[in-house]
Amino acid sequence: MKLAAEQMHGIDSLREEFLSDLKLAVDYGEPISLYEPIEYILQLGGKRIRPICALAACEMFGLPYEKAMNQALAIEIFHNFSLMHDDIMDNAPLRRGQATVHEKWGVNTAILSGDAMLVLTYHYLHKIVNTGSLNALATFNAAAIQVCEGQQMDMEFEGRDEVSMDEYITMIRKKTAVLLGESLRQGALAAGAGIEDAHLAYDFGTNFGIAFQLQDDLLDAFGDPKKFGKKVGGDIIEGKKTFLYLKALQVADSPLREELKKIYQGGDFSEAEKIQKVLDIYSSLNIKDLTKAEMNRYYISSGIALNSIDLPEDRKRILRSLAEHSMVREL
Amino acid sequence: MKLAAEQMHGIDSLREEFLSDLKLAVDYGEPISLYEPIEYILQLGGKRIRPICALAACEMFGLPYEKAMNQALAIEIFHNFSLMHDDIMDNAPLRRGQATVHEKWGVNTAILSGDAMLVLTYHYLHKIVNTGSLNALATFNAAAIQVCEGQQMDMEFEGRDEVSMDEYITMIRKKTAVLLGESLRQGALAAGAGIEDAHLAYDFGTNFGIAFQLQDDLLDAFGDPKKFGKKVGGDIIEGKKTFLYLKALQVADSPLREELKKIYQGGDFSEAEKIQKVLDIYSSLNIKDLTKAEMNRYYISSGIALNSIDLPEDRKRILRSLAEHSMVREL
Repeated sequence: MKLAAEQMHGIDSLREEFLSDLKLAVDYGEPISLYEPIEYILQLGGKRIRPICALAACEMFGLPYEKAMNQALAIEIFHNFSLMHDDIMDNAPLRRGQATVHEKWGVNTAILSGDAMLVLTYHYLHKIVNTGSLNALATFNAAAIQVCEGQQMDMEFEGRDEVSMDEYITMIRKKTAVLLGESLRQGALAAGAGIEDAHLAYDFGTNFGIAFQLQDDLLDAFGDPKKFGKKVGGDIIEGKKTFLYLKALQVADSPLREELKKIYQGGDFSEAEKIQKVLDIYSSLNIKDLTKAEMNRYYISSGIALNSIDLPEDRKRILRSLAEHSMVREL
Repeated sequence: MKLAAEQMHGIDSLREEFLSDLKLAVDYGEPISLYEPIEYILQLGGKRIRPICALAACEMFGLPYEKAMNQALAIEIFHNFSLMHDDIMDNAPLRRGQATVHEKWGVNTAILSGDAMLVLTYHYLHKIVNTGSLNALATFNAAAIQVCEGQQMDMEFEGRDEVSMDEYITMIRKKTAVLLGESLRQGALAAGAGIEDAHLAYDFGTNFGIAFQLQDDLLDAFGDPKKFGKKVGGDIIEGKKTFLYLKALQVADSPLREELKKIYQGGDFSEAEKIQKVLDIYSSLNIKDLTKAEMNRYYISSGIALNSIDLPEDRKRILRSLAEHSMVREL
């Protein structure tokens, strides 16, 4: 039974449905100390953009969102598994303003509860096997391994002197964008979409994911502190090799490049001074506009992929507006 | 095409075939730093008992071992994933006499390469979907989550005063025995065995796995240092709550129980003295024979499960001799 366009659920409604299923997703076994951290991280909140994309893509292709619920759960559990392990690696004390799992229960439990979440991911993913979507298992695995690769690249970059723009884009593609793309593809496959359309849905999500991450890099430097969830300038303080920093190294002349590198490593000045010095260099090099141009390039590519899906426009409006609303106008 | 009993491969031959496939199992992606540790741990050696059990079970049920090769690879990769993460948690410097992954490449890489191995496990497991063995995914997942639960119990026990015998058996069942049982079940399912026979194969492996772990506890205290791979007395030095220790606490009178607890926590004596003091108490309480009796109980249960499988005896001889040869006569 195909869903009519006017029967499609909006973002908020899909989120609500997802959250009510997520609440019941963890079936406690023994010992409960393995399961408490799983429940904890899954209930920490967040926009739930990935599962919503899976559910919305399923409805875009004409089947009710329920058909993609197992995949939506699998993806959100996988995403939170990766957060739990990334937080250990980054030594992060907080996640969404709350103590991280390794802070609360110790590193060993965070490793092991994360592992259990990965097994739980496949528990939900395997529920779809009976529907005949064998491809969905293979594409999910391909995405999952890329998330690991992206995180490894990110860690490697920290210890390296030179990182190319291509390498940086590859890293954020793998670490962040691919899972967003895969969410859309899983939703498409759940609805029985053809391989080509499923691939376009993936392209839409992946390109959008890169644009979104570049926006995140921009907001970290130029965002409105009142609206941006994190501390503005955090990447600069940490000396993180963001798109802005790598772009500045690329376009600066040799003396300015050396100056930027030196400031970025820190020195005899306060955090606020460091942020200001780096922002001044970024301004002199027009980094904000250069980054926006790159971000827009990926955003436009995502739009082209969505346009190319062989469906009437009224079926695409939910996902189109989700993408539009995620891009900040003020930048 | 059913395999005749005389065409079945022996243990050494199955190991050789498995090792040649294992060599090609890791398809390197980028960055290679994620994949090197995977290759490293997979090539560290070991008896490969789990994959051999899967392949042998497949042939026992009449199909050539190749039918179970993907499952054998999945299981061995999963087992080594769990070793890689356990070694972090146990802070272990060595694995099979070589540096552990976290010692060689750091904790973060060991977490992440382990995660990638878990994804790789499912890559191989999903190759079997096309054969129609949907059950195999569900039973594998049930085993995998128990391995996580068992490891969490093991960690919990370290910090606890009281651990019951039942809890200890449950812990080693989940942490060690279930994956051995699952190896046999996966082999059985690959050969198209019925659910009941597959379950008996699982029971054979699980009971044997518990017997084997109890033997390991025994060997750690009473083994011949020349034959036992690890340092004899290691569990006593570490203050590990083994079956022997818990049994001693159970059968000792109150003063002796307190004395044993005190010695086990360590004190003003050398490691050699600690080992001797504990062994003296074990001897006075007849712990060796009590543990052997328990070990034999599980060993006999494993034999009963194997006997109950509806196949002629000549098909069972490979697995029966594998089990027999794994039990040390001298104990």
